Amino acid sequence: MIIIKTVEQLQEIRKNINGTVGFVPTMGALHNGHISLIKKAREENEIVVVSIFVNPTQFLPGEDLDAYPRRTEADKKICEMCKVDYLFMPEISTMYREEEVLIKAPNKSFILEGKSRPGHFDGVLQVVLKLFGIVQPTNAYFGKKDAQQLSLIQQMVKNLFLPINIIACDIVRESDGLALSSRNVYLDETQRKDALLISKSLYSAASLIAKNVFDVNVIKDRIYEVMEKLDVEYVAIVDREFNEIKTIQRGNSIILVVARFGNTRLLDNIWL
Amino acid sequence: MIIIKTVEQLQEIRKNINGTVGFVPTMGALHNGHISLIKKAREENEIVVVSIFVNPTQFLPGEDLDAYPRRTEADKKICEMCKVDYLFMPEISTMYREEEVLIKAPNKSFILEGKSRPGHFDGVLQVVLKLFGIVQPTNAYFGKKDAQQLSLIQQMVKNLFLPINIIACDIVRESDGLALSSRNVYLDETQRKDALLISKSLYSAASLIAKNVFDVNVIKDRIYEVMEKLDVEYVAIVDREFNEIKTIQRGNSIILVVARFGNTRLLDNIWL
Repeated sequence: MIIIKTVEQLQEIRKNINGTVGFVPTMGALHNGHISLIKKAREENEIVVVSIFVNPTQFLPGEDLDAYPRRTEADKKICEMCKVDYLFMPEISTMYREEEVLIKAPNKSFILEGKSRPGHFDGVLQVVLKLFGIVQPTNAYFGKKDAQQLSLIQQMVKNLFLPINIIACDIVRESDGLALSSRNVYLDETQRKDALLISKSLYSAASLIAKNVFDVNVIKDRIYEVMEKLDVEYVAIVDREFNEIKTIQRGNSIILVVARFGNTRLLDNIWL
Repeated sequence: MIIIKTVEQLQEIRKNINGTVGFVPTMGALHNGHISLIKKAREENEIVVVSIFVNPTQFLPGEDLDAYPRRTEADKKICEMCKVDYLFMPEISTMYREEEVLIKAPNKSFILEGKSRPGHFDGVLQVVLKLFGIVQPTNAYFGKKDAQQLSLIQQMVKNLFLPINIIACDIVRESDGLALSSRNVYLDETQRKDALLISKSLYSAASLIAKNVFDVNVIKDRIYEVMEKLDVEYVAIVDREFNEIKTIQRGNSIILVVARFGNTRLLDNIWL
């Protein structure tokens, strides 16, 4: 595995690759969720590139940019074990230099996560577009856990006609159901236990739907009931284009949940 | 020459090209300025792609979108004569589909042209980025006449790390000095004669500089003097990053002029 720090070095290497390139952009603190993306990229491509970059432009003032977990040495070992070819770890000053051309996510980015974190998705799209520019991947891998992010990246690729396949990968969970997240490390013991109610509420919704309950209000009530003791930020039921819906459409619905544990926001969702 | 109407068709063709691709994006109504770009692209690349697309997002409300000259049949013949391989002529509904991810030009886009036409450069960058996504050119050719546009496109390519060379091409002029522009057709006989004062003012500035006059105020005074009878919108003297300067720096200065003839704005400039 070759570790790359500069854009120029990676561009030079990329020029000489003719086969398929699988790309997994990350902010590091790699867990089994990331590993599942990397493994999939490894299976489906001749060359695998992983990036680790805690992108400042997607954090709002007061968010956890400085506290965001960094585990560089462990991350390198994981990538090596997963047979990554190139690990790109740029500095902030490598990725951002001056007053820049910016990306503006569409209005639908201002609901849900975008409402809680205005400007967040502009920063996500900006860094993803920069990374796509450098890596020029054939296939790029993103987790379904950040469902709205995934949807906006898919839209950007479509709007800009980029010749890149966006591969959506299933959420990976702890054995007890908690969706993996680099931010889970912020939880204390009680919070960790309570956080289980998030995935429980989604499973409960799924079992209602299995019994042909399709009314979104009924389903939301059940979800709120299960998470009663939590500080729930939102429960939303949307189609794959992130329009809110009133009735579940199998094969085209996503239930999204966010709950707060102190300063930590945990996201989870289920794709129906 | 193959004429292409859909994105999918061009993407499919692009996939199977291994050599260098030269790209000349235009809004049609091709004149000798465009032809010089296409010829240069022809000399320097294995494959040449030209696009003709009057991009609505770079016109402001009330501007000349509907009146903008369209000469499709003549344009096709010109491209054929210039041995263009692929002429891409999409419909608006092919390029724009929905509420989109947008591009935001940096603050320096709000001076000069951007001040007169707020939002104009956002639309320019948006369509250029879309076209780059589809064509994936090795080299893309732009005229120096739209100097600020050229500068912002160069910045976008740099900020997004696109593997594309932006080739800046010299202004082509009528034999009497008027810079070629698709908008020159709007001029009546008197305006056409008066418009000569624009390039005259720039030549006059150049001859002052040749005599080692480097004070920007002195040079501006001369330019305004020559264009006294015109409706001058602005005269600006900037470095190659479009910062206004006080003293001419040879090899790093551009003098920009815009004058109005009724509703027609004519741009000209000289690179020192």
